[in-house]
Amino acid sequence: MTLSKNRIKYIHSLELKKNRKNDKVFLAEGPKLVGDLLEHFPCQFLIATSEWISQNEDLPTDDVTIITEEELSRASLLKTPQQVLAVFRQPEDTADFSVISHSLCLALDDIQDPGNLGTIIRLADWFGIEHIFCSPNTVDAYNPKTVQATMGGIARVKLHYTPLPELICALKGIPVYGTFLDGEDIYCQPLSSYGLIVMGNEGNGIGKEVEQLINRRLYIPNYPADRQTSESLNVAIATAVVCAEFRRQAALP
Amino acid sequence: MTLSKNRIKYIHSLELKKNRKNDKVFLAEGPKLVGDLLEHFPCQFLIATSEWISQNEDLPTDDVTIITEEELSRASLLKTPQQVLAVFRQPEDTADFSVISHSLCLALDDIQDPGNLGTIIRLADWFGIEHIFCSPNTVDAYNPKTVQATMGGIARVKLHYTPLPELICALKGIPVYGTFLDGEDIYCQPLSSYGLIVMGNEGNGIGKEVEQLINRRLYIPNYPADRQTSESLNVAIATAVVCAEFRRQAALP
Repeated sequence: MTLSKNRIKYIHSLELKKNRKNDKVFLAEGPKLVGDLLEHFPCQFLIATSEWISQNEDLPTDDVTIITEEELSRASLLKTPQQVLAVFRQPEDTADFSVISHSLCLALDDIQDPGNLGTIIRLADWFGIEHIFCSPNTVDAYNPKTVQATMGGIARVKLHYTPLPELICALKGIPVYGTFLDGEDIYCQPLSSYGLIVMGNEGNGIGKEVEQLINRRLYIPNYPADRQTSESLNVAIATAVVCAEFRRQAALP
Repeated sequence: MTLSKNRIKYIHSLELKKNRKNDKVFLAEGPKLVGDLLEHFPCQFLIATSEWISQNEDLPTDDVTIITEEELSRASLLKTPQQVLAVFRQPEDTADFSVISHSLCLALDDIQDPGNLGTIIRLADWFGIEHIFCSPNTVDAYNPKTVQATMGGIARVKLHYTPLPELICALKGIPVYGTFLDGEDIYCQPLSSYGLIVMGNEGNGIGKEVEQLINRRLYIPNYPADRQTSESLNVAIATAVVCAEFRRQAALP
Protein backbone atom coordinates (compact mmCIF):
# COMPACT_ATOMS: atom_id res chain seq x y z
CA MET A 1 0.00 0.00 0.00
CA THR A 2 1.09 3.59 -0.33
CA LEU A 3 0.35 6.49 1.89
CA SER A 4 -1.79 9.21 0.33
CA LYS A 5 -0.52 12.77 0.23
CA ASN A 6 -3.57 13.81 2.18
CA ARG A 7 -2.77 11.44 4.99
CA ILE A 8 0.84 12.63 5.23
CA LYS A 9 -0.50 16.19 5.30
CA TYR A 10 -2.97 15.23 8.04
CA ILE A 11 -0.24 13.62 10.17
CA HIS A 12 1.93 16.73 9.90
CA SER A 13 -1.08 18.92 10.75
CA LEU A 14 -1.18 17.23 14.17
CA GLU A 15 1.92 19.17 15.18
CA LEU A 16 -0.53 22.02 15.83
CA LYS A 17 -2.66 22.00 18.96
CA LYS A 18 -5.75 23.41 17.24
CA ASN A 19 -5.80 20.53 14.76
CA ARG A 20 -5.35 17.94 17.52
CA LYS A 21 -8.07 19.61 19.55
CA ASN A 22 -10.52 19.81 16.64
CA ASP A 23 -10.32 16.09 16.02
CA LYS A 24 -9.56 15.10 19.64
CA VAL A 25 -6.60 13.01 18.50
CA PHE A 26 -2.86 12.73 19.02
CA LEU A 27 0.13 11.11 17.36
CA ALA A 28 2.67 8.64 18.70
CA GLU A 29 5.62 6.84 17.12
CA GLY A 30 7.88 3.86 17.78
CA PRO A 31 7.21 0.22 18.74
CA LYS A 32 7.53 0.64 22.50
CA LEU A 33 5.33 3.74 22.82
CA VAL A 34 2.68 2.73 20.26
CA GLY A 35 2.56 -0.77 21.81
CA ASP A 36 1.89 0.78 25.23
CA LEU A 37 -0.75 3.21 23.96
CA LEU A 38 -2.66 0.61 21.90
CA GLU A 39 -3.66 -0.97 25.21
CA HIS A 40 -5.07 2.29 26.58
CA PHE A 41 -6.48 4.54 23.83
CA PRO A 42 -8.74 3.92 20.81
CA CYS A 43 -6.56 3.94 17.68
CA GLN A 44 -7.86 5.89 14.66
CA PHE A 45 -5.29 4.61 12.21
CA LEU A 46 -1.85 3.11 12.14
CA ILE A 47 0.93 2.95 9.58
CA ALA A 48 3.84 0.58 9.97
CA THR A 49 6.51 -1.40 8.20
CA SER A 50 5.79 -5.04 7.33
CA GLU A 51 8.41 -6.02 9.93
CA TRP A 52 6.39 -4.38 12.75
CA ILE A 53 3.07 -5.74 11.43
CA SER A 54 4.42 -9.30 11.36
CA GLN A 55 5.23 -9.03 15.09
CA ASN A 56 1.94 -7.39 16.08
CA GLU A 57 -1.22 -9.27 15.23
CA ASP A 58 -4.79 -8.58 16.37
CA LEU A 59 -4.58 -4.82 16.00
CA PRO A 60 -7.54 -2.89 17.48
CA THR A 61 -8.09 -0.88 14.28
CA ASP A 62 -8.91 -1.83 10.68
CA ASP A 63 -7.25 1.26 9.28
CA VAL A 64 -3.73 -0.13 8.92
CA THR A 65 -1.31 0.86 6.16
CA ILE A 66 1.81 -1.22 5.54
CA ILE A 67 4.59 0.91 4.11
CA THR A 68 8.34 0.91 3.51
CA GLU A 69 10.78 2.62 5.86
CA GLU A 70 11.30 5.26 3.19
CA GLU A 71 7.59 6.08 3.01
CA LEU A 72 7.44 6.13 6.82
CA SER A 73 10.19 8.74 6.91
CA ARG A 74 7.99 11.08 4.84
CA ALA A 75 5.16 10.82 7.36
CA SER A 76 7.21 10.72 10.57
CA LEU A 77 7.99 13.73 12.74
CA LEU A 78 11.05 11.98 14.19
CA LYS A 79 14.61 12.36 12.90
CA THR A 80 14.92 8.59 12.78
CA PRO A 81 11.47 7.03 12.19
CA GLN A 82 10.84 3.85 14.16
CA GLN A 83 8.74 1.25 12.31
CA VAL A 84 5.31 2.46 13.41
CA LEU A 85 3.24 5.63 13.71
CA ALA A 86 -0.30 5.78 15.05
CA VAL A 87 -3.04 8.34 15.65
CA PHE A 88 -5.05 7.86 18.83
CA ARG A 89 -8.20 9.40 20.27
CA GLN A 90 -7.59 11.76 23.23
CA PRO A 91 -9.33 10.62 26.44
CA GLU A 92 -12.07 12.81 27.93
CA ASP A 93 -10.79 15.05 30.73
CA THR A 94 -12.86 13.98 33.71
CA ALA A 95 -11.28 15.94 36.53
CA ASP A 96 -12.30 15.09 40.06
CA PHE A 97 -10.60 17.43 42.53
CA SER A 98 -11.29 15.09 45.46
CA VAL A 99 -8.37 12.83 44.44
CA ILE A 100 -6.07 15.48 45.97
CA SER A 101 -7.46 14.84 49.45
CA HIS A 102 -6.34 11.22 49.43
CA SER A 103 -3.44 10.99 46.97
CA LEU A 104 -0.37 13.00 46.02
CA CYS A 105 -0.95 15.09 42.86
CA LEU A 106 1.06 17.58 40.80
CA ALA A 107 0.00 21.01 39.56
CA LEU A 108 1.94 22.71 36.75
CA ASP A 109 1.79 26.49 36.48
CA ASP A 110 2.50 27.43 32.84
CA ILE A 111 5.16 24.86 31.94
CA GLN A 112 6.15 25.81 28.38
CA ASP A 113 8.60 23.22 27.11
CA PRO A 114 6.98 20.09 25.60
CA GLY A 115 9.99 17.95 26.56
CA ASN A 116 9.82 19.11 30.19
CA LEU A 117 6.11 18.24 30.38
CA GLY A 118 6.71 14.80 28.86
CA THR A 119 9.57 14.12 31.27
CA ILE A 120 7.37 15.19 34.21
CA ILE A 121 4.58 12.82 33.09
CA ARG A 122 7.13 9.99 32.81
CA LEU A 123 8.51 10.58 36.32
CA ALA A 124 5.01 11.04 37.79
CA ASP A 125 4.24 7.57 36.43
CA TRP A 126 7.41 6.20 38.11
CA PHE A 127 6.51 7.77 41.44
CA GLY A 128 2.87 6.67 41.35
CA ILE A 129 1.39 10.15 40.87
CA GLU A 130 -1.78 9.54 38.89
CA HIS A 131 -3.15 13.04 38.38
CA ILE A 132 -1.48 16.20 37.05
CA PHE A 133 -3.43 19.48 37.07
CA CYS A 134 -2.18 21.97 34.48
CA SER A 135 -2.87 25.69 34.21
CA PRO A 136 -4.60 26.51 30.90
CA ASN A 137 -1.37 28.08 29.57
CA THR A 138 0.69 24.95 30.19
CA VAL A 139 1.87 23.35 26.94
CA ASP A 140 -0.51 20.74 25.51
CA ALA A 141 0.14 17.22 26.81
CA TYR A 142 -0.74 15.85 23.36
CA ASN A 143 2.05 17.78 21.67
CA PRO A 144 3.95 15.03 19.76
CA LYS A 145 7.23 15.95 21.54
CA THR A 146 5.50 15.61 24.91
CA VAL A 147 3.89 12.28 24.03
CA GLN A 148 7.26 10.86 22.90
CA ALA A 149 9.03 12.08 26.06
CA THR A 150 6.45 10.39 28.34
CA MET A 151 7.70 6.98 27.11
CA GLY A 152 4.20 5.63 27.64
CA GLY A 153 3.54 7.42 30.94
CA ILE A 154 0.69 9.31 29.27
CA ALA A 155 -1.26 6.04 29.20
CA ARG A 156 -1.31 5.88 33.00
CA VAL A 157 -1.11 9.48 34.26
CA LYS A 158 -4.24 11.63 33.89
CA LEU A 159 -3.89 15.26 32.83
CA HIS A 160 -6.44 17.93 33.73
CA TYR A 161 -6.31 21.50 32.36
CA THR A 162 -7.95 23.89 34.81
CA PRO A 163 -7.22 27.32 36.38
CA LEU A 164 -5.00 26.60 39.38
CA PRO A 165 -6.19 29.41 41.73
CA GLU A 166 -9.79 28.09 41.63
CA LEU A 167 -8.56 24.53 42.09
CA ILE A 168 -6.40 25.41 45.11
CA CYS A 169 -9.09 27.60 46.72
CA ALA A 170 -11.45 24.63 46.62
CA LEU A 171 -8.94 22.52 48.61
CA LYS A 172 -9.66 23.46 52.18
CA GLY A 173 -7.21 22.16 54.79
CA ILE A 174 -5.15 20.23 52.26
CA PRO A 175 -1.37 20.78 52.05
CA VAL A 176 -0.28 22.71 48.96
CA TYR A 177 3.50 22.55 48.40
CA GLY A 178 5.77 24.64 46.19
CA THR A 179 9.55 25.08 45.89
CA PHE A 180 11.11 28.49 46.50
CA LEU A 181 14.65 29.74 47.10
CA ASP A 182 13.49 30.97 50.53
CA GLY A 183 11.55 27.78 51.40
CA GLU A 184 12.28 25.28 54.18
CA ASP A 185 14.83 22.49 53.58
CA ILE A 186 12.70 19.66 52.12
CA TYR A 187 14.75 17.09 54.09
CA CYS A 188 13.79 18.69 57.40
CA GLN A 189 10.02 18.68 56.76
CA PRO A 190 7.52 15.91 57.35
CA LEU A 191 5.82 15.45 53.97
CA SER A 192 2.26 14.19 53.59
CA SER A 193 1.12 11.24 51.47
CA TYR A 194 -1.60 13.38 49.85
CA GLY A 195 -2.02 16.97 48.67
CA LEU A 196 -0.75 19.07 45.79
CA ILE A 197 2.82 19.85 44.69
CA VAL A 198 2.90 22.98 42.50
CA MET A 199 5.75 23.45 40.00
CA GLY A 200 6.26 26.70 38.11
CA ASN A 201 7.15 28.08 34.69
CA GLU A 202 10.70 27.57 33.36
CA GLY A 203 11.59 31.26 33.37
CA ASN A 204 9.34 32.83 35.98
CA GLY A 205 8.59 30.07 38.47
CA ILE A 206 5.22 29.94 40.19
CA GLY A 207 2.90 32.86 39.38
CA LYS A 208 2.06 35.37 42.14
CA GLU A 209 -1.62 34.50 42.38
CA VAL A 210 -0.83 30.80 42.84
CA GLU A 211 2.13 31.50 45.16
CA GLN A 212 -0.16 33.20 47.69
CA LEU A 213 -2.21 30.03 47.95
CA ILE A 214 0.74 27.75 48.76
CA ASN A 215 0.84 26.80 52.44
CA ARG A 216 4.06 24.70 52.53
CA ARG A 217 7.14 26.41 51.04
CA LEU A 218 9.96 23.94 50.33
CA TYR A 219 13.58 24.29 49.22
CA ILE A 220 15.86 21.71 47.58
CA PRO A 221 19.21 22.37 49.29
CA ASN A 222 22.25 22.87 47.07
CA TYR A 223 25.59 21.45 48.16
CA PRO A 224 27.59 22.54 49.98
CA ALA A 225 25.11 25.08 51.30
CA ASP A 226 27.60 27.96 51.16
CA ARG A 227 28.82 27.32 47.61
CA GLN A 228 27.85 29.54 44.71
CA THR A 229 26.00 27.47 42.13
CA SER A 230 23.35 27.84 39.45
CA GLU A 231 20.39 29.84 40.65
CA SER A 232 17.94 27.08 39.97
CA LEU A 233 17.28 23.58 38.73
CA ASN A 234 15.42 22.66 35.55
CA VAL A 235 11.72 22.26 36.45
CA ALA A 236 11.55 18.55 35.56
CA ILE A 237 14.67 17.94 37.67
CA ALA A 238 13.20 19.82 40.64
CA THR A 239 9.91 17.90 40.27
CA ALA A 240 11.83 14.61 40.37
CA VAL A 241 13.84 15.49 43.48
CA VAL A 242 10.69 16.63 45.28
CA CYS A 243 8.59 13.59 44.28
CA ALA A 244 11.45 11.20 45.20
CA GLU A 245 11.64 12.72 48.70
CA PHE A 246 7.85 12.51 49.24
CA ARG A 247 7.98 8.83 48.27
CA ARG A 248 11.14 8.12 50.32
CA GLN A 249 9.41 9.46 53.42
CA ALA A 250 6.18 7.56 52.62
CA ALA A 251 8.12 4.28 52.46
CA LEU A 252 9.88 4.80 55.83
CA PRO A 253 8.89 2.20 58.39
CA MET B 1 27.42 48.29 12.40
CA THR B 2 26.24 45.39 10.33
CA LEU B 3 27.15 41.78 10.61
CA SER B 4 29.07 40.34 7.64
CA LYS B 5 27.69 37.33 5.81
CA ASN B 6 30.89 35.51 6.62
CA ARG B 7 30.44 36.02 10.32
CA ILE B 8 26.84 34.78 10.23
CA LYS B 9 28.09 31.74 8.29
CA TYR B 10 30.83 31.21 10.87
CA ILE B 11 28.36 31.35 13.78
CA HIS B 12 26.12 28.80 12.11
CA SER B 13 29.13 26.59 11.37
CA LEU B 14 29.58 26.21 15.15
CA GLU B 15 26.55 23.93 15.27
CA LEU B 16 28.98 21.24 14.07
CA LYS B 17 31.40 19.66 16.52
CA LYS B 18 34.28 19.46 14.02
CA ASN B 19 34.17 23.22 13.48
CA ARG B 20 34.04 23.96 17.21
CA LYS B 21 36.90 21.53 17.77
CA ASN B 22 39.07 22.98 14.98
CA ASP B 23 38.88 26.45 16.44
CA LYS B 24 38.50 25.36 20.08
CA VAL B 25 35.51 27.64 20.52
CA PHE B 26 31.84 27.50 21.45
CA LEU B 27 28.75 29.66 21.19
CA ALA B 28 26.41 30.98 23.87
CA GLU B 29 23.35 33.24 23.79
CA GLY B 30 21.26 35.36 26.13
CA PRO B 31 22.11 37.98 28.79
CA LYS B 32 22.14 35.62 31.77
CA LEU B 33 24.28 32.89 30.20
CA VAL B 34 26.68 35.17 28.33
CA GLY B 35 27.06 37.32 31.44
CA ASP B 36 28.02 34.22 33.47
CA LEU B 37 30.46 32.91 30.86
CA LEU B 38 32.22 36.26 30.32
CA GLU B 39 33.57 35.88 33.85
CA HIS B 40 35.03 32.43 33.14
CA PHE B 41 36.13 32.02 29.51
CA PRO B 42 38.09 34.22 27.06
CA CYS B 43 35.62 35.79 24.62
CA GLN B 44 36.58 35.75 20.92
CA PHE B 45 33.81 38.06 19.77
CA LEU B 46 30.43 39.27 20.85
CA ILE B 47 27.41 40.67 19.04
CA ALA B 48 24.60 42.40 20.89
CA THR B 49 21.81 44.92 20.69
CA SER B 50 22.55 48.49 21.82
CA GLU B 51 20.22 47.87 24.77
CA TRP B 52 22.45 45.07 26.09
CA ILE B 53 25.65 47.00 25.37
CA SER B 54 24.40 50.02 27.32
CA GLN B 55 23.95 47.82 30.40
CA ASN B 56 27.28 45.99 30.05
CA GLU B 57 30.38 48.13 30.03
CA ASP B 58 34.04 47.05 30.31
CA LEU B 59 33.70 44.04 28.03
CA PRO B 60 36.75 41.72 27.96
CA THR B 61 36.93 41.72 24.16
CA ASP B 62 37.43 44.44 21.53
CA ASP B 63 35.56 42.51 18.89
CA VAL B 64 32.06 43.79 19.65
CA THR B 65 29.35 44.33 17.03
CA ILE B 66 26.26 46.32 17.90
CA ILE B 67 23.29 45.20 15.84
CA THR B 68 19.50 45.40 15.70
CA GLU B 69 17.25 42.62 16.99
CA GLU B 70 16.40 41.79 13.40
CA GLU B 71 20.05 41.29 12.47
CA LEU B 72 20.58 39.25 15.62
CA SER B 73 17.80 36.90 14.59
CA ARG B 74 19.70 36.10 11.41
CA ALA B 75 22.78 35.06 13.39
CA SER B 76 21.06 33.40 16.35
CA LEU B 77 20.43 29.67 16.65
CA LEU B 78 17.56 30.29 19.10
CA LYS B 79 13.89 30.52 18.16
CA THR B 80 13.66 33.79 20.07
CA PRO B 81 17.06 35.55 20.07
CA GLN B 82 17.96 37.22 23.35
CA GLN B 83 19.94 40.44 22.97
CA VAL B 84 23.44 38.95 22.93
CA LEU B 85 25.43 36.16 21.32
CA ALA B 86 29.09 35.42 22.03
CA VAL B 87 31.80 33.03 20.92
CA PHE B 88 34.14 31.81 23.67
CA ARG B 89 37.36 29.82 23.77
CA GLN B 90 36.98 26.24 25.08
CA PRO B 91 39.04 25.57 28.22
CA GLU B 92 41.83 22.98 28.04
CA ASP B 93 40.77 19.56 29.36
CA THR B 94 43.18 18.94 32.21
CA ALA B 95 41.82 15.73 33.70
CA ASP B 96 43.19 14.60 37.04
CA PHE B 97 41.67 11.28 38.05
CA SER B 98 42.68 11.72 41.69
CA VAL B 99 39.74 14.10 42.32
CA ILE B 100 37.54 10.97 42.41
CA SER B 101 39.28 9.71 45.55
CA HIS B 102 38.26 12.76 47.57
CA SER B 103 35.13 14.16 45.89
CA LEU B 104 31.92 12.89 44.30
CA CYS B 105 32.15 12.82 40.49
CA LEU B 106 29.88 11.74 37.63
CA ALA B 107 30.72 9.52 34.67
CA LEU B 108 28.48 9.52 31.59
CA ASP B 109 28.51 6.46 29.33
CA ASP B 110 27.44 7.57 25.84
CA ILE B 111 24.76 10.15 26.70
CA GLN B 112 23.42 11.20 23.27
CA ASP B 113 20.93 14.01 23.82
CA PRO B 114 22.47 17.51 24.05
CA GLY B 115 19.63 18.72 26.28
CA ASN B 116 20.10 15.82 28.70
CA LEU B 117 23.83 16.56 28.97
CA GLY B 118 23.19 20.27 29.58
CA THR B 119 20.59 19.48 32.24
CA ILE B 120 23.03 17.09 33.95
CA ILE B 121 25.76 19.76 33.98
CA ARG B 122 23.27 22.23 35.49
CA LEU B 123 22.22 19.84 38.27
CA ALA B 124 25.84 18.78 38.93
CA ASP B 125 26.56 22.47 39.54
CA TRP B 126 23.61 22.64 41.97
CA PHE B 127 24.77 19.58 43.88
CA GLY B 128 28.42 20.65 44.03
CA ILE B 129 29.77 18.00 41.65
CA GLU B 130 32.74 19.66 40.01
CA HIS B 131 33.96 16.98 37.60
CA ILE B 132 32.09 14.96 34.96
CA PHE B 133 33.95 12.23 33.06
CA CYS B 134 32.38 11.46 29.67
CA SER B 135 32.94 8.48 27.41
CA PRO B 136 34.34 9.58 24.01
CA ASN B 137 30.95 8.86 22.38
CA THR B 138 29.04 11.14 24.74
CA VAL B 139 27.60 14.18 22.96
CA ASP B 140 29.90 17.23 22.91
CA ALA B 141 29.46 19.49 25.94
CA TYR B 142 30.05 22.52 23.69
CA ASN B 143 27.07 21.69 21.48
CA PRO B 144 25.05 24.96 21.52
CA LYS B 145 21.94 23.16 22.84
CA THR B 146 23.99 21.70 25.71
CA VAL B 147 25.60 25.04 26.56
CA GLN B 148 22.18 26.75 26.68
CA ALA B 149 20.69 23.99 28.87
CA THR B 150 23.53 24.28 31.44
CA MET B 151 22.25 27.79 32.31
CA GLY B 152 25.83 28.77 33.15
CA GLY B 153 26.74 25.53 34.93
CA ILE B 154 29.36 24.87 32.26
CA ALA B 155 31.38 27.73 33.73
CA ARG B 156 31.81 25.86 37.02
CA VAL B 157 31.63 22.14 36.20
CA LYS B 158 34.66 20.59 34.44
CA LEU B 159 34.09 18.06 31.67
CA HIS B 160 36.67 15.40 30.76
CA TYR B 161 36.31 13.09 27.74
CA THR B 162 38.10 9.81 28.38
CA PRO B 163 37.45 6.06 27.94
CA LEU B 164 35.55 5.02 31.07
CA PRO B 165 36.87 1.43 31.44
CA GLU B 166 40.47 2.67 31.72
CA LEU B 167 39.39 5.43 34.10
CA ILE B 168 37.52 3.02 36.39
CA CYS B 169 40.28 0.38 36.32
CA ALA B 170 42.70 3.02 37.59
CA LEU B 171 40.44 3.69 40.63
CA LYS B 172 41.49 1.01 43.07
CA GLY B 173 39.34 0.66 46.19
CA ILE B 174 37.07 3.59 45.28
CA PRO B 175 33.29 3.12 45.18
CA VAL B 176 31.85 3.11 41.65
CA TYR B 177 28.05 3.44 41.62
CA GLY B 178 25.53 2.76 38.88
CA THR B 179 21.72 2.44 38.76
CA PHE B 180 20.14 -0.82 37.63
CA LEU B 181 16.64 -2.31 37.80
CA ASP B 182 18.09 -5.14 39.93
CA GLY B 183 20.20 -2.83 42.15
CA GLU B 184 19.79 -2.22 45.89
CA ASP B 185 17.29 0.40 47.10
CA ILE B 186 19.33 3.64 47.17
CA TYR B 187 17.55 4.72 50.38
CA CYS B 188 18.79 1.63 52.26
CA GLN B 189 22.47 2.07 51.33
CA PRO B 190 25.10 4.18 53.06
CA LEU B 191 26.47 6.42 50.29
CA SER B 192 30.02 7.80 50.31
CA SER B 193 31.04 11.43 49.97
CA TYR B 194 33.52 10.56 47.21
CA GLY B 195 33.72 8.17 44.27
CA LEU B 196 32.13 7.87 40.87
CA ILE B 197 28.44 7.71 39.87
CA VAL B 198 28.07 6.21 36.38
CA MET B 199 24.98 7.05 34.29
CA GLY B 200 24.23 5.29 31.01
CA ASN B 201 22.98 5.91 27.50
CA GLU B 202 19.31 6.96 26.99
CA GLY B 203 18.33 3.79 25.13
CA ASN B 204 20.78 1.13 26.27
CA GLY B 205 21.83 2.17 29.77
CA ILE B 206 25.35 1.45 30.97
CA GLY B 207 27.51 -0.54 28.52
CA LYS B 208 28.55 -4.10 29.43
CA GLU B 209 32.25 -3.38 29.75
CA VAL B 210 31.61 -0.51 32.16
CA GLU B 211 28.88 -2.41 34.04
CA GLN B 212 31.34 -5.14 35.03
CA LEU B 213 33.50 -2.52 36.73
CA ILE B 214 30.70 -1.10 38.90
CA ASN B 215 30.97 -2.25 42.52
CA ARG B 216 27.82 -0.61 44.02
CA ARG B 217 24.58 -1.33 42.16
CA LEU B 218 21.77 1.04 43.14
CA TYR B 219 18.04 1.23 42.36
CA ILE B 220 15.68 4.23 42.57
CA PRO B 221 12.50 2.67 43.98
CA ASN B 222 9.27 3.34 42.14
CA TYR B 223 6.06 3.87 44.12
CA PRO B 224 4.22 1.93 45.29
CA ALA B 225 6.75 -0.85 44.80
CA ASP B 226 4.18 -3.31 43.40
CA ARG B 227 2.62 -0.93 40.86
CA GLN B 228 3.26 -1.25 37.15
CA THR B 229 4.90 1.92 35.89
CA SER B 230 7.28 3.11 33.17
CA GLU B 231 10.28 0.87 32.84
CA SER B 232 12.73 3.65 33.51
CA LEU B 233 13.38 7.29 34.24
CA ASN B 234 14.95 9.82 31.88
CA VAL B 235 18.73 9.78 32.47
CA ALA B 236 18.91 13.40 33.69
CA ILE B 237 16.03 12.71 36.11
CA ALA B 238 17.73 9.57 37.46
CA THR B 239 21.00 11.49 37.85
CA ALA B 240 19.21 14.18 39.86
CA VAL B 241 17.48 11.74 42.21
CA VAL B 242 20.76 9.90 42.83
CA CYS B 243 22.82 13.07 43.40
CA ALA B 244 20.14 14.52 45.70
CA GLU B 245 20.25 11.36 47.86
CA PHE B 246 24.07 11.38 48.06
CA ARG B 247 23.93 15.00 49.21
CA ARG B 248 21.03 14.42 51.63
CA GLN B 249 23.01 11.70 53.36
CA ALA B 250 26.19 13.82 53.36
CA ALA B 251 24.33 16.63 55.16
CA LEU B 252 22.89 14.36 57.87
CA PRO B 253 24.19 15.21 61.34
